[in-house]
Amino acid sequence: MTRRDGPDQALKIVGQSAPRLDAVDKVTGRAVYASDYVVPGMLEARILRSPVPHARIVRVDASRAEALPGVVAVLTAADVSDIDPYYGPAFKDQPLVAIDRVRYQGEPVAAVAAIDAATAEAAVELIDVAYEDLPVVETIDDALADGSARLHGALRTSGHFRDLRALAPIPGTNVCHRYHLRRGDVEEAFASADVVLENVYTFPAVQHCALESHVSIAAWRPDGIEVWSSAQHPFPVRRELAEMFGVPQHAVRVHVPLIGGAFGQKCYTKMEPLAVALARKAGRPVRVALSMAEAFLTLTRHGTRVRIKTGARRDGSVVARKVELWLDTGAYADVGPRVTQKAGYRSIGPYRFAGVEVDASCIYTNKVPAGAFRGYGGPQASWAGESQMTELAHALGMDPVAFRRRNLLGRGDEYQSGDTPIDGDLHGQLDRLEEVRGAPGDLPPDCGRGIAIGFKDGGGTHTVSNSIVRLHADGSATVGSGSVEIGQGARTVMSQIAAEALSLPLHHVRVPEPDTDATPYDQGTSASRSTTLMGYAVWQAALDVRRQLVALAADAFEAPADVIRLADGAAIAGQRRLTYADLIARHYGLAGGELIGSGVFRPGVFSGPLGGSTTFWEAGIGFAEIHVDRDTGEIRVLRYLSTVDVGRAINPALCEGQEEGAAMQGLGHALREELVFERGQLLNGSLIDYAVPTIEALPREFGAILIEHGDGPGPYGAKGVGESGIVAPAPAIAAAVHAATGVWVRDLPMTPERVWRALRGMDQREPGPGG
Amino acid sequence: MTRRDGPDQALKIVGQSAPRLDAVDKVTGRAVYASDYVVPGMLEARILRSPVPHARIVRVDASRAEALPGVVAVLTAADVSDIDPYYGPAFKDQPLVAIDRVRYQGEPVAAVAAIDAATAEAAVELIDVAYEDLPVVETIDDALADGSARLHGALRTSGHFRDLRALAPIPGTNVCHRYHLRRGDVEEAFASADVVLENVYTFPAVQHCALESHVSIAAWRPDGIEVWSSAQHPFPVRRELAEMFGVPQHAVRVHVPLIGGAFGQKCYTKMEPLAVALARKAGRPVRVALSMAEAFLTLTRHGTRVRIKTGARRDGSVVARKVELWLDTGAYADVGPRVTQKAGYRSIGPYRFAGVEVDASCIYTNKVPAGAFRGYGGPQASWAGESQMTELAHALGMDPVAFRRRNLLGRGDEYQSGDTPIDGDLHGQLDRLEEVRGAPGDLPPDCGRGIAIGFKDGGGTHTVSNSIVRLHADGSATVGSGSVEIGQGARTVMSQIAAEALSLPLHHVRVPEPDTDATPYDQGTSASRSTTLMGYAVWQAALDVRRQLVALAADAFEAPADVIRLADGAAIAGQRRLTYADLIARHYGLAGGELIGSGVFRPGVFSGPLGGSTTFWEAGIGFAEIHVDRDTGEIRVLRYLSTVDVGRAINPALCEGQEEGAAMQGLGHALREELVFERGQLLNGSLIDYAVPTIEALPREFGAILIEHGDGPGPYGAKGVGESGIVAPAPAIAAAVHAATGVWVRDLPMTPERVWRALRGMDQREPGPGG
Repeated sequence: MTRRDGPDQALKIVGQSAPRLDAVDKVTGRAVYASDYVVPGMLEARILRSPVPHARIVRVDASRAEALPGVVAVLTAADVSDIDPYYGPAFKDQPLVAIDRVRYQGEPVAAVAAIDAATAEAAVELIDVAYEDLPVVETIDDALADGSARLHGALRTSGHFRDLRALAPIPGTNVCHRYHLRRGDVEEAFASADVVLENVYTFPAVQHCALESHVSIAAWRPDGIEVWSSAQHPFPVRRELAEMFGVPQHAVRVHVPLIGGAFGQKCYTKMEPLAVALARKAGRPVRVALSMAEAFLTLTRHGTRVRIKTGARRDGSVVARKVELWLDTGAYADVGPRVTQKAGYRSIGPYRFAGVEVDASCIYTNKVPAGAFRGYGGPQASWAGESQMTELAHALGMDPVAFRRRNLLGRGDEYQSGDTPIDGDLHGQLDRLEEVRGAPGDLPPDCGRGIAIGFKDGGGTHTVSNSIVRLHADGSATVGSGSVEIGQGARTVMSQIAAEALSLPLHHVRVPEPDTDATPYDQGTSASRSTTLMGYAVWQAALDVRRQLVALAADAFEAPADVIRLADGAAIAGQRRLTYADLIARHYGLAGGELIGSGVFRPGVFSGPLGGSTTFWEAGIGFAEIHVDRDTGEIRVLRYLSTVDVGRAINPALCEGQEEGAAMQGLGHALREELVFERGQLLNGSLIDYAVPTIEALPREFGAILIEHGDGPGPYGAKGVGESGIVAPAPAIAAAVHAATGVWVRDLPMTPERVWRALRGMDQREPGPGG
Repeated sequence: MTRRDGPDQALKIVGQSAPRLDAVDKVTGRAVYASDYVVPGMLEARILRSPVPHARIVRVDASRAEALPGVVAVLTAADVSDIDPYYGPAFKDQPLVAIDRVRYQGEPVAAVAAIDAATAEAAVELIDVAYEDLPVVETIDDALADGSARLHGALRTSGHFRDLRALAPIPGTNVCHRYHLRRGDVEEAFASADVVLENVYTFPAVQHCALESHVSIAAWRPDGIEVWSSAQHPFPVRRELAEMFGVPQHAVRVHVPLIGGAFGQKCYTKMEPLAVALARKAGRPVRVALSMAEAFLTLTRHGTRVRIKTGARRDGSVVARKVELWLDTGAYADVGPRVTQKAGYRSIGPYRFAGVEVDASCIYTNKVPAGAFRGYGGPQASWAGESQMTELAHALGMDPVAFRRRNLLGRGDEYQSGDTPIDGDLHGQLDRLEEVRGAPGDLPPDCGRGIAIGFKDGGGTHTVSNSIVRLHADGSATVGSGSVEIGQGARTVMSQIAAEALSLPLHHVRVPEPDTDATPYDQGTSASRSTTLMGYAVWQAALDVRRQLVALAADAFEAPADVIRLADGAAIAGQRRLTYADLIARHYGLAGGELIGSGVFRPGVFSGPLGGSTTFWEAGIGFAEIHVDRDTGEIRVLRYLSTVDVGRAINPALCEGQEEGAAMQGLGHALREELVFERGQLLNGSLIDYAVPTIEALPREFGAILIEHGDGPGPYGAKGVGESGIVAPAPAIAAAVHAATGVWVRDLPMTPERVWRALRGMDQREPGPGG
């Protein structure tokens, strides 16, 4: 189900739901994913992983593995003493194989490159490692306890994020970053409140469960490093490999084939350094392809505990909010400090508070590292914040929609003083949802409805995307875009943007896969930034070529530039017409040569020299209608609608796909998913034991509603999409559960057992993630 | 031995004989040549070639071949009826496999793609073809005879060359192009001459004998074609494949790995269409790797007959020249019309004639096609023209050097009215040679000395090169250059140009291999154009980035741009210094993003809106000192020196290598090489039967003398080099033979038998190439 506002009739390609350009290849199996990629002569790698969560490595003896026929190289810490073996987007705290110490169960300790996978697997079993156990820091509380084991010593920052340069680890603790936000006088504001609620909400560690796991193939050559990897951030990976292995960036070439889903798990450096180090030792290309079980041992979403207090006046106006968040980042920080910052920032919600106080902590424990996952802390923060908004509405005796409407920031308002003004239309989305949500009396027994706002800053403010557009002598174009095709349709969207700007048919434009030798810089495929930021650079590069075409046509027609019209690969002035091929041949004197345009998104392009607080706001709302089985506690989602202000949908079908995918993933988090650890051991790290939603969990009515005002800062008024949809489901469903049953659920996931216990007034909170 | 003039002390990298960047890889065997390239899943192809020179194809039955286990596809003419199966840079006259008719012995008739080479080879033997012989047009005289068989009907031009758009085939004949040049009143000029000589000179068909033969790997995908090929012209190949297979240029990706020598044999489209058609049918990548024997069946240098008449006055001034050239282009024109034009144009020589008349004809015969080969008709034309200049000096009783000096065009003179003025310093080179050539009395018996001018227009006037230079966040750079590394050192030279322009250390610059998806357009690697034209584009692109760096530094230092100095990867103003990495980080706000510059060479850049007649003149002189064994007729070259005006040597050692390689190849043509055909059958098409010079043929004293005035139109005053050196050896040695023995040799090669016969006054001219 879809409704869109304001299509622009002047646009020919933008705004059309063009079929994905890779659709046929993908459905026929011809598409080459990272997993399918073959580099001639490559070896297969297998990784020996720590069986214990925290231990000193006493001895590693690889001699028996090395002696196995077919084994080409065994990599241990001893092999990386001549390089900088540490990586990480926030801190350089993670070694490519464990050095002296393991910090989580599943951490790579050694790796084998062999002629085939079976040999590598057999060899891994022959590596003898002796461990001496260290105390396990299992939970947030363990980590914060006095006298707990310290996971890391002094931390070396990576310098990658401008706004994380001043990372704030607390020396001598397991807190690797603290984020603080203050607005107004929060105590005075609370004093003015008539109703104050304070609760603790928990959100467990969850896993991305992309269909394809991590794949990195590396080749080591005297003149450089070549890597094919399922990387969402090929350019930061290039940078990190250059730093680690001590070569210039031009000597590191990163290719990214098609990726079978990522959702953040492939952000920043992952298996690439291990693959490069193995290839360096083996003297041959090496492929490191993780199993799905190994993906569970590579990255998770932060299990999070949120203590939140919100105050409101009797008239329905909120006045104050105080939030404490603890994010469990596992054994290595990964991008946890950034997630912590975002979780803290996003915990306020889009409301007019007079006073706000937020403290968020990123905490090391002996568990699988947690890092990027669609929404970056937003789901955890909104689970608490939006749930409490609903609870507060109830406490005030108000309809939750009316209560939110009373307090919502509108377009042009500031989230915080000095922030980029809100550009998302939440009021309009509430109107739309009210049209479709149905009258209260419609509902059968044990059913309920709920909404929650999915609101976040988007796009990566302090990031850069460069693009080059090349118009060939036949009038077809190649577009350089570093956005990675992870299934979201980036290549199709970039092609549409360029084709529209160049007035070319869509099939006359091609966007090759990212290759750092060929594709100009892009910060990465995350934060809903591709269409808006990378798309902006593509748009500008295409417009640069367009200007050159117009100038050539003006010269050819001896006419002023402003009478030249471009359409369908040709320049037109009155009755005269020259194709782009004609213009290029005329310019260069024969049928060769090309026109080159470049474009850039950089901080400040959208919002002044400081770049604003965000490039755009991603504003959506989730609406859930559910049924609770009082006997089993099972929640069935009957209807789920996700609205989102997309500015302009470059490709509406792809926007809907993003939004629906996000909502479905959010339903999984709300109802099913949870990584269970026991004494640092991951108990359910496989798709057999870990419950992702399947097609059976699909609500009877399910869809996205796109709001388009054409007012986003991206090309043709586009904004990012695909993350707000994952933020809203859990609090929307919790609201619906309360509407249906009168109980408040504050711990995720809302499994039948937990709901059943809640219905019976039993304690819902089991010893779980986030302590 | 080397001497250079005028090094520029201000240059840091340009002018240095930096070791080739690929040297270590090449000498250690790690370098990946086209022959080494592996595409996963690729099949091996073998080609069935016609055993007869001219026949109608009555039947092709591939059924037995198709039934052989391991055979995936057999390609015959029936498989290409849905595409345009014809290619060719001048005329689209050459089918990728023979259609209905074969026109030379060795022409591809069918091809097999199989799981390995042995299977493909066995399958080729199983293809049953029935031929019906047609009359064989073996020689130029056969081709021109009344009633001879016509090889082609109407000819379709390719439109590739601007100045060959008006190709002039003579309908109903085997003449596919005629070139005419008239200057002054030639009859009147001859009437004023005191001495007139008229001779016929012949130059046989020869082969390039690059160490590596042709390799093309092709993959066919629904969204496009990918080719890895040993192609000197990747972009024209892309264009031709796009046209043949009916796809936009953006959908054809051509990669060029390292090539083991080319010398013109890999110019324009060669085996790529066959590889693509096979891959299309097989549904898998296919590798077409020719044997050395097959290279002999793919392309040759035009066997040429030249009738030349030159008149001079008693005072030593030349007045008139009349030249008729017949170039045997074999069964398909390839770039023969262009070679014919160049041979005709270059046959005048750099002398002040009052009247000139040139007629050159490009003629089809039933032999292996002839096309591009180092010097494009120059060696053939100068063999006649320079030999006759020496004969004329003798007839006038003048020293050949003094005679030339009397008539040579100087810098700034026009070759023809309206042509680009001469920029090469031939007088200075004569001075230099006189310093080293030694006194006549020095010589032992049966020894002689000779010189000849190697003079040609260079660079490809109506061509385009685009370049993109990307400066990465760490201050290292990637340079887009479409010049192919064929052993001449193009990548090293482009790196030096970019490093100099960017004030970067050489190892901070990288030039990836050409890849039409990544590398901007370049017309091709031929005509000594790379350093000057592609290098110009690289230079301009680097200077574009340099300007951006200066602007960023001016902003950072709050200083005027003209006080900013760039050195060693940093901007400096007084005591202040910021590295490029600092400037980029400051510009983009974090350590990402890149600076992009673009540059272009296009017609007119060097010499006004029409582009002049040439981008530069390649002017050199060959000096030979030889001994003739009167008993055997064997010529031993004792000393050979090749001088050349390079403008500025970007890398002197590479310039010398080019010049010496050209001279050595010229010595082969002078003394040994000749393709022998009998009734259309090539008799010596292998390295066993065909005699290329080996290290034993190396003269005792051998070297290049580079003349540098820094006045070329290319980067830092560079000009092209590497072709004049092949032009001079044959006439220089013939002059020396005359000096030693008193006989004139007018047919090549100067084999012992031919010299022996000449010494005995016997007819030298055997029925040979060029009739």
